[in-house]
Amino acid sequence: MTAVCGRDAGRAAAAAAKLGWASSETDWRRLVERDDIDLIDICSPGNTHLEIAVAALEAGKHVLCEKPLANTVEEAEAMVAAADKARGDGVLAMVGFTYRRVPAIALARRLVAQGRIGEVRHVRAQYLQDWIADAETPLSWRLEKDKAGSGALGDIGAHIIDLTQFITQDRITEVSGQLETFVTERPRAAPQAGHASLAGTPTDERGPVTVDDAALFLARFAGGALGSFEATRFATGRKNAIRIEVNGSKGSLAFDFEEMNVLHFYDAEDDPQTAGFRRILATEPGQPWVGAWWPPGHGLGYEHAFTHQVVDLVTAIAEGTDPAPTFADGLQIQRVLGAVEQSSRTRTWEEIPTAP
Amino acid sequence: MTAVCGRDAGRAAAAAAKLGWASSETDWRRLVERDDIDLIDICSPGNTHLEIAVAALEAGKHVLCEKPLANTVEEAEAMVAAADKARGDGVLAMVGFTYRRVPAIALARRLVAQGRIGEVRHVRAQYLQDWIADAETPLSWRLEKDKAGSGALGDIGAHIIDLTQFITQDRITEVSGQLETFVTERPRAAPQAGHASLAGTPTDERGPVTVDDAALFLARFAGGALGSFEATRFATGRKNAIRIEVNGSKGSLAFDFEEMNVLHFYDAEDDPQTAGFRRILATEPGQPWVGAWWPPGHGLGYEHAFTHQVVDLVTAIAEGTDPAPTFADGLQIQRVLGAVEQSSRTRTWEEIPTAP
Amino acid sequence: MTAVCGRDAGRAAAAAAKLGWASSETDWRRLVERDDIDLIDICSPGNTHLEIAVAALEAGKHVLCEKPLANTVEEAEAMVAAADKARGDGVLAMVGFTYRRVPAIALARRLVAQGRIGEVRHVRAQYLQDWIADAETPLSWRLEKDKAGSGALGDIGAHIIDLTQFITQDRITEVSGQLETFVTERPRAAPQAGHASLAGTPTDERGPVTVDDAALFLARFAGGALGSFEATRFATGRKNAIRIEVNGSKGSLAFDFEEMNVLHFYDAEDDPQTAGFRRILATEPGQPWVGAWWPPGHGLGYEHAFTHQVVDLVTAIAEGTDPAPTFADGLQIQRVLGAVEQSSRTRTWEEIPTAP
Amino acid sequence: MTAVCGRDAGRAAAAAAKLGWASSETDWRRLVERDDIDLIDICSPGNTHLEIAVAALEAGKHVLCEKPLANTVEEAEAMVAAADKARGDGVLAMVGFTYRRVPAIALARRLVAQGRIGEVRHVRAQYLQDWIADAETPLSWRLEKDKAGSGALGDIGAHIIDLTQFITQDRITEVSGQLETFVTERPRAAPQAGHASLAGTPTDERGPVTVDDAALFLARFAGGALGSFEATRFATGRKNAIRIEVNGSKGSLAFDFEEMNVLHFYDAEDDPQTAGFRRILATEPGQPWVGAWWPPGHGLGYEHAFTHQVVDLVTAIAEGTDPAPTFADGLQIQRVLGAVEQSSRTRTWEEIPTAP
Repeated sequence: MTAVCGRDAGRAAAAAAKLGWASSETDWRRLVERDDIDLIDICSPGNTHLEIAVAALEAGKHVLCEKPLANTVEEAEAMVAAADKARGDGVLAMVGFTYRRVPAIALARRLVAQGRIGEVRHVRAQYLQDWIADAETPLSWRLEKDKAGSGALGDIGAHIIDLTQFITQDRITEVSGQLETFVTERPRAAPQAGHASLAGTPTDERGPVTVDDAALFLARFAGGALGSFEATRFATGRKNAIRIEVNGSKGSLAFDFEEMNVLHFYDAEDDPQTAGFRRILATEPGQPWVGAWWPPGHGLGYEHAFTHQVVDLVTAIAEGTDPAPTFADGLQIQRVLGAVEQSSRTRTWEEIPTAP
Repeated sequence: MTAVCGRDAGRAAAAAAKLGWASSETDWRRLVERDDIDLIDICSPGNTHLEIAVAALEAGKHVLCEKPLANTVEEAEAMVAAADKARGDGVLAMVGFTYRRVPAIALARRLVAQGRIGEVRHVRAQYLQDWIADAETPLSWRLEKDKAGSGALGDIGAHIIDLTQFITQDRITEVSGQLETFVTERPRAAPQAGHASLAGTPTDERGPVTVDDAALFLARFAGGALGSFEATRFATGRKNAIRIEVNGSKGSLAFDFEEMNVLHFYDAEDDPQTAGFRRILATEPGQPWVGAWWPPGHGLGYEHAFTHQVVDLVTAIAEGTDPAPTFADGLQIQRVLGAVEQSSRTRTWEEIPTAP
Repeated sequence: MTAVCGRDAGRAAAAAAKLGWASSETDWRRLVERDDIDLIDICSPGNTHLEIAVAALEAGKHVLCEKPLANTVEEAEAMVAAADKARGDGVLAMVGFTYRRVPAIALARRLVAQGRIGEVRHVRAQYLQDWIADAETPLSWRLEKDKAGSGALGDIGAHIIDLTQFITQDRITEVSGQLETFVTERPRAAPQAGHASLAGTPTDERGPVTVDDAALFLARFAGGALGSFEATRFATGRKNAIRIEVNGSKGSLAFDFEEMNVLHFYDAEDDPQTAGFRRILATEPGQPWVGAWWPPGHGLGYEHAFTHQVVDLVTAIAEGTDPAPTFADGLQIQRVLGAVEQSSRTRTWEEIPTAP
Repeated sequence: MTAVCGRDAGRAAAAAAKLGWASSETDWRRLVERDDIDLIDICSPGNTHLEIAVAALEAGKHVLCEKPLANTVEEAEAMVAAADKARGDGVLAMVGFTYRRVPAIALARRLVAQGRIGEVRHVRAQYLQDWIADAETPLSWRLEKDKAGSGALGDIGAHIIDLTQFITQDRITEVSGQLETFVTERPRAAPQAGHASLAGTPTDERGPVTVDDAALFLARFAGGALGSFEATRFATGRKNAIRIEVNGSKGSLAFDFEEMNVLHFYDAEDDPQTAGFRRILATEPGQPWVGAWWPPGHGLGYEHAFTHQVVDLVTAIAEGTDPAPTFADGLQIQRVLGAVEQSSRTRTWEEIPTAP
């Protein structure tokens, strides 16, 4: 933990002191230049990802880039090109879809891979929040298209695209989508002292919301499964409900992040007398990463997935293997996001290109 | 309970004896002719609804017709015309969307009407079964388009269309849908001795499935809400999961028929310290119909909604008021079903006509 | 359904008309005398069970007696003696612990009998209501010891004693208990027009509560299992929560009547990767009695267990077999109830006599 | 994080390196002697608590002692005496009942304090594990009375005694209990390389289990509430289920550690139409400690309570206030544990002394 970077010198230094970073910077270019830095974690808004990532990779720094990879497909393509080039020099790039590393999600993927649910027929995914359901919640950068790229679609919809493709090991090939902005104007936020979530202090001035509040789409997977997706910041009472259900010919899986340590699994080959969805505590011994944590039944929280991500990334760097998800994975997700936006305009189904 | 009608004389007589009907018939026309019959309940496949309903109404019999009202919009329109004509003579017609009369559903509608969830923004509805997920489950009439009209769409999708419109008191105005038949050929069923559900004894002969196994669609409501709908008979492990969630600007509602006596309600105006989805037992004293049943906490089952339906219908007949849902309601649902089918062909959004 | 009996002639006649009984009586002795009556269902308060049951059995009438069998062990012993005597003449007696015939409960018993949970180590049972948690809820006969025998203990505690013994096929051998009356004086109720539950209209006069509001006890079963029991009418927010959990060496079972169609089952012999409590819908085809009801996933309600009880009783009468639970079973439960009361006085463990 | 202490020099050094401690020791007395140590956390078996705590306090070190405070009431009394003496010199002592600092538990206490559930009538608490339900799980120090003091009673039963008293702000005054050892002999464990939980590698040699596998007791609180407690390591399928329910005259609370971020709350003063248990996410902004963590809906895990504990302890040291729970609180819990053991022998109710 060599250096943390922020635009305000005082606050960056304070963050370094509080969180245990050895130094702080106010210009990300300094991170790229410094010899004592091997790995850069890009957590800034989406409109900055391309420039920082390319510079870092060209400077021979490994990169962990927050999701979504970029604000447009074109930017994501340029980042993949940079990552491919760097890869030849042993420099690695990863995109941070952390929820993949929730143990229950990893178990879901493993069960699909083991054929436990057979051929996948239905994928049902929702990411429900209510953080800006109140029309007086102020504008933050996440509600500005030039910074955030999109709204609920890219911020939270990207997660369920990644998770469902990760679990099923399949790809979305076409979508029919609908974006919606329920509240088109909000109070501008006072310059904020805190973190950059969907909060802030409203001022008297108002400004336009330029991203979607909600994104819904139907999808078709390469393997034939039908998908239904919904990402919204207007689901009153739902705080961070990531719900995924997958129905296959031989079984089903269900997950809800509100109970993040649990995976529900139905095995259609069970004795009918006792068949039923099993509530599996995915934090039991034997599940991935869990051996490093607590005894049986002692749950994990949100940030453990970040720890797992760092462990896997650092291990990949040490071993010279590619950490997943790659920038190419990030690009494919960006293409799905782009197709949903396109479909919302054309009001027809849009295909996801598979070419690089 | 004057007469029950079935095509096989022996089995019709046996049913009458067992279930307490005073007589039996083998031709529905006899029911229409008999003077001792005031009300006819049409429970036969969809392709017979039009003929029977029109004949009954013209003969001055009140009619309760099972859902969906018909197999096509045109048939439904003819039935509405017949009902309108009969209404002038005091003859009433009702379509049997029984789930409306589950107390938790009625409570949901009442809360919306009271403004408890504010402006409705999201409607999320799924009707999940797995009855034919096994590819060897035989063909029944419900899988033949000429008899059933459609598959999951009309059989179970119609219910969630009705329920969401009933709860929100709003109308679906446009849809983008996708139908899918996962298993296109099945063993033909042996002539069956039992009831006409999606079961039967397979034979060696095979035949084509001519209806959808699953239907998904996005929807827009007149009031601006976005809807996501899914009806499938391939959700392995889900037996009869009717799930409805409605998010409004001031609160949310959630229902799952697997816990049919419960409504979940989130009130965004609650003190934040103790805000949370309330698990309401909708079978407590004061809820509709419940006064006639059990003490607090003693749940109702599937058939109670049928009892409520009969009570309300007979009361309406006695009072000369219109029982809901009317044939016109059934026609509007038929138009949504038709638009979903059309959209699945055109792969674009389709509007629901509002004219009669 | 030959005759219904009530003390008020007008209301008895009205009930007969409304509910479909062929006649009504105001003196139960008339039921015993009538030749056209074969089976008498005793639903009156506990202090009347002995006299009616003995008279009915002596008159050669089959008897279904509501639980608990009697108000004291002595009364129950006399009833067993009468039942034994009548049995010689082919006259049958049954006590009405209806919850045994909830399909999920029957499945629980079957799984124990199949050895699916191994040796039983823990039994945990609660019957939680809140019907009189309000201190102004008036006195009803159920709160008067001379009529009801006891309060929560006999009214609802008896059910969980029966259910746990029924599921485990084991017997409670000793108990350490504690009774409590939280509200010792209540308004007297106006003479009531409705049914005899824990409700009524308060008057200005007050009277003493002479039964327990809550009963808790620890128990030891013959097979070595430890039990924990709690019956209360003061669990605010719990309407009719009958909760039973059984832990064995090879698995566990859990039930809650608030979700009456579900049994949870943990199989310790499952693959650890996917072991978890299974949520079994006990209303699927193949479960007892269910074949007579609905398609998969269409739940049953409270009264279906009564229907199952009548079916089983009438079948037993037709076949000349003994319907369960017998009066002897009722007596054994009465002895447990008596031992809990005794233990609450002596403040030590009390054994349950096993001799007749 | 100055020094970690373990009996094996190599493993202590390795732990220090891995976990970030500046140094390691093999004799706890060295920690007491060192000038660069201000606070000692005692995590060794219960039979060592007295000696270490007294030495540390006398040396002027603040002490955090793991629960239960000691193995006997006498030891606990000596520790309280030492803590009282040290307090005069500004040296603080705390006992580590970490679950108090789960936000949902803290919220439960606050609601009781606010009078939201009225007068407490029922307390229902279970701590269910299945870690040694398998008879071949080997002996560990936790199954040896001379080291652990007791089994399930002191290890996990102590937690629910503390939590229920903490939430209700009341005290248990008498108990009737029953201890049980289901498996009285087990394989001895191989000398273990890992942590000291209820696991290990079995050897061919067998030894006696000298502690309880399960502990059940009824309790009476000073304020009149009735309690039912159960702690067991034999609840097959339950991994770490800490369940607490409190029923009061105006509302109820329910908690299950398997869903550790949730508190269920029933408010009897809600409009009856919409009254129901509220599922409160206790990790929302405004709940204690939560401001330092994640955005809404991003759950906490097991170890966060330890972090909260350290924050509160260090803050108390900085401010010179007494951190809770104190050693006196630990002693009172020890007296409850002792009374349960005593009651299990005498088979009568036993009072908890209130004198110091």
